[in-house]
Amino acid sequence: MKVLAFDIFGTVVDWHGSIVREVSALYPQVDANAFALAWRAGYQPAMSRVRSGELGWTRIDDLHRMILDGLLPQFGLQHLSEDERAHLNRVWHRLQAWPDSVQGLTRLKSKFTICSLSNGNIGLLTNMAKNAGLPWDCILSAEVFKAYKPDPATYLGVAQVFDLQPADVMLCAAHHDDLAAARACGLQTAYIERPFEFGTLQPKDVSPQAGNDWHAKSIFDLADQLGC
Amino acid sequence: MKVLAFDIFGTVVDWHGSIVREVSALYPQVDANAFALAWRAGYQPAMSRVRSGELGWTRIDDLHRMILDGLLPQFGLQHLSEDERAHLNRVWHRLQAWPDSVQGLTRLKSKFTICSLSNGNIGLLTNMAKNAGLPWDCILSAEVFKAYKPDPATYLGVAQVFDLQPADVMLCAAHHDDLAAARACGLQTAYIERPFEFGTLQPKDVSPQAGNDWHAKSIFDLADQLGC
Repeated sequence: MKVLAFDIFGTVVDWHGSIVREVSALYPQVDANAFALAWRAGYQPAMSRVRSGELGWTRIDDLHRMILDGLLPQFGLQHLSEDERAHLNRVWHRLQAWPDSVQGLTRLKSKFTICSLSNGNIGLLTNMAKNAGLPWDCILSAEVFKAYKPDPATYLGVAQVFDLQPADVMLCAAHHDDLAAARACGLQTAYIERPFEFGTLQPKDVSPQAGNDWHAKSIFDLADQLGC
Repeated sequence: MKVLAFDIFGTVVDWHGSIVREVSALYPQVDANAFALAWRAGYQPAMSRVRSGELGWTRIDDLHRMILDGLLPQFGLQHLSEDERAHLNRVWHRLQAWPDSVQGLTRLKSKFTICSLSNGNIGLLTNMAKNAGLPWDCILSAEVFKAYKPDPATYLGVAQVFDLQPADVMLCAAHHDDLAAARACGLQTAYIERPFEFGTLQPKDVSPQAGNDWHAKSIFDLADQLGC
């Protein structure tokens, strides 16, 4: 195993908590928990429009903005200006890391090449890494492969970029469907427990599923298990 | 100015010195200086075959290997095995940084987003960064844009990735032709003096040329000039 590729939203960073904090501070009248969940709920349907060919290649920044514009009236925020919308949309560039992520990744980096493999675009992931201190060796994104996970081109693309066999690469993610798609391409997989990905009001089932090579309570715990 | 994009071969790393050191150690009977120069001399013609469409998209690792295979007989090394050729070809992943590069980039990173913009492929640049300690915020490569510099798609691609205007990006390079092409796309430019890019036997003219926004003796000197 040479390369660890990490899913980002939910696995390395806390999108729900970060959005709740920003929205609560900016717009205290809004139900920030419902707002964060609704925004994220638009994510898979928006990518499906790209996967199906209904939309040409569209970056997540632009998909996030389309979802946001549709959502604002439901939360009484239809009056937001262009600048306010653009600023709010960039919250995805400012997502905060889970408490163990930076230290865990730093330990893993001593033994493996660590990269992102996210549907987020390169600029978003770079700004996020700079802001949150994520120590990637390399930022890989759906934007490099012009395909969204779970398209095999993304998982196999990581192996090809590094001139490796798929089994030399491990996907680390908090989502079993992402891991299953990577496994079908021959990658190794590690499940990372993030029980509060959707907030403390909506705890997630994080019990182990068969098929994953590793199951870890956190990225820090994964570093322990991999002897880093 | 938000993003500094760096040319790599010759600007950040010393390809000539690194290849001379490895070839001298492995094959002391070979004129390592001539070998390094001949290998590098095949670089532009090989990329031209991709630019012209004669070859489909081909990564630098593969172009380097094609050039190497053609070169070995001239240096009495036609007997090299597949493993020996593959190892030698990966010398480009192991190129050493100029003495000021790591510290200069680290200073610049405190104020700007710093990325590579190289014709080298992503895997090569990632392995090089890990080996040489280059602290990129993001690795950008011709491989991301499927076009080789000086194609405008590469320079404009950096601005697009970060959702910036071209003038918000500066290309930093030791080659005036690369800088001129970036300038034609609206980027700012900084020339970095690397008088011994081709070795101490072939010093290079590093005198300033009109049009560049900055002219620096080194990356460290550029950090001084930019107040980092």
